[in-house]
Amino acid sequence: MNTKASKNQIIQESELHALGKRAFLKLGMSDQDTDDLTRILVLADLFGLSTHGLSRIESYGDRLKIGGINSQPHIQIERLAPAIIGVNGDNGVGPVVGMRTLNAAMEAATEFGIAIAFARGSNHFGPISPYSLIAADKGFASIIGSNATTTIAPWGGSDARLGNSPLGFGVPNPNGKPFLLDMAMSVVARAKIRNALKFGEQIPNTWGTDAKGNATTDPKAALDGFLLPIGGHKGYGLALMVDLFAGLLSNAAYLTHIKSWQDAPDEPQNLGHFFILVDTKRLGSSQWLSERMIDFANILMESPPADPSKPVIVPGMIELAKLERQRRDGIEMSSETLELLKQYAGE
Amino acid sequence: MNTKASKNQIIQESELHALGKRAFLKLGMSDQDTDDLTRILVLADLFGLSTHGLSRIESYGDRLKIGGINSQPHIQIERLAPAIIGVNGDNGVGPVVGMRTLNAAMEAATEFGIAIAFARGSNHFGPISPYSLIAADKGFASIIGSNATTTIAPWGGSDARLGNSPLGFGVPNPNGKPFLLDMAMSVVARAKIRNALKFGEQIPNTWGTDAKGNATTDPKAALDGFLLPIGGHKGYGLALMVDLFAGLLSNAAYLTHIKSWQDAPDEPQNLGHFFILVDTKRLGSSQWLSERMIDFANILMESPPADPSKPVIVPGMIELAKLERQRRDGIEMSSETLELLKQYAGE
Repeated sequence: MNTKASKNQIIQESELHALGKRAFLKLGMSDQDTDDLTRILVLADLFGLSTHGLSRIESYGDRLKIGGINSQPHIQIERLAPAIIGVNGDNGVGPVVGMRTLNAAMEAATEFGIAIAFARGSNHFGPISPYSLIAADKGFASIIGSNATTTIAPWGGSDARLGNSPLGFGVPNPNGKPFLLDMAMSVVARAKIRNALKFGEQIPNTWGTDAKGNATTDPKAALDGFLLPIGGHKGYGLALMVDLFAGLLSNAAYLTHIKSWQDAPDEPQNLGHFFILVDTKRLGSSQWLSERMIDFANILMESPPADPSKPVIVPGMIELAKLERQRRDGIEMSSETLELLKQYAGE
Repeated sequence: MNTKASKNQIIQESELHALGKRAFLKLGMSDQDTDDLTRILVLADLFGLSTHGLSRIESYGDRLKIGGINSQPHIQIERLAPAIIGVNGDNGVGPVVGMRTLNAAMEAATEFGIAIAFARGSNHFGPISPYSLIAADKGFASIIGSNATTTIAPWGGSDARLGNSPLGFGVPNPNGKPFLLDMAMSVVARAKIRNALKFGEQIPNTWGTDAKGNATTDPKAALDGFLLPIGGHKGYGLALMVDLFAGLLSNAAYLTHIKSWQDAPDEPQNLGHFFILVDTKRLGSSQWLSERMIDFANILMESPPADPSKPVIVPGMIELAKLERQRRDGIEMSSETLELLKQYAGE
């Protein structure tokens, strides 16, 4: 392990995976569950999504310690129809429930061509693109979503009643890079508004509202208020559809019924997720698919850039390039996260 | 038929349906196909989506007359896997291919709980919410999308390489109103920019770019340029995912391979669509679903509105209220559209 900057360190993937496993094992989880959980979080770190990677040990660890999350869940998997799976996560860690649900969905999609798996009784989902990548590597196109703690006001409303629910898509490319999209429904993350405040800048009036639900250019007012969804009523509608599939149809909690992991860390969140997987091997040969995927990407990337220094990119390209680089050269991790993992591991 | 305004007339649904049928029958279509087509377009008019209703007779009629669209398609439906349907639309009218594909998807979803149907060899899709409503009325939750003629530049690019692809969601409510979302990926429609130009107003710099791909507040420059997607790179990614499912995976044309119905009306577009349907009867009783759907809507609508004169609404609410009112009181149609339908019907 080398020190790259004062606050960051470089660590190899296998080392990070092993350290993560040791930490979660000490928190009472099973060997298989720590494997699944660490796999998803390390993939997030490899993609450069550090807020959704092993830094989550902070909140997951707290909640596991006080029993807010069940460290030894008995996850139940049921076939509700030939190609519909219902999963009861028994209040396990989100990515543990997520991986179990993804695996069940891939199995059913192999049999029927498409399957949907609904999870309930889960917790904070973690990042979506790791699941999409695992599915794409096995030839599945995917639509994956989760609901989340409420942080957004309904369009035209003035209190938090829906979550900044993430939605992801993946399309495999057997001889190249898949397309991966992992998006939350807000125009920007709160961190970007905090930065504007720090530098004394105004924000565009499309980023957030004040506490009364009125659009604002004042970052301080926006931090006291609510994030705005992309495209106004469009993003509002999209966030609701994700919650309808992930929470309502899955028989999990939805909207304000979801418990906040921050305000009530000792209580089950009863979050829900959904995974729709399509087996692309049923649609054509891998050569057919790869040729089309490469052509599709080339058409986009050949558009002359508006700013010559910024070539056109396609969804997932930056994250996949980072993953490749960090798999080779090691992963850049904050020293704090590594320290916390070691503390939990008792090292 | 009563005259309501100089340019609009009121016509009953059954009358409009019959008139639409007579017009398309004279264009050489079969009785069943005109039924399907007119059903979708009249639903659009009932919803108040007049640009996607029977006014489409103008472009559909032109293209049917010159053979750009096949008036007598032999639509082929194939099972690619137990729950995957592949449809070859044989260059039929979009909503004819769409309805045939929707019906095949509902049949397979009844059997397996979920199904996906991919259509290729199709044309301009028409509106999405009519399909979502038909599915919801039969208890299916849906995710439906189509690709479209290229009008949008890739994010950071400077020429039109992707379509303003529509994406729709529907969730049924057995004892109340379903949730319906029907959205294109641009922040606004071009008509809104044309209006700003007409009134000499500037536009927000999030609506469009100039011809070189740079964001602009000048409506004239934006009309010479490209529409911007919602949420910038997020809407760009979402539009691509719709095209990947609707065009690439369906084996239809995609991106710049799609022919424009405006520039090449005499050529097949080879558009693609996808329909994902989930049979909600497999998830719980209709009472269970309705109670949750009504609770879900109430939570949102009870948020105190930022502007007291504008209560919070939920997706599809305005369109469904309009449908109910126009089913009772008659549909408001432009006299021009009615005149054109009569001309085509030879009346």
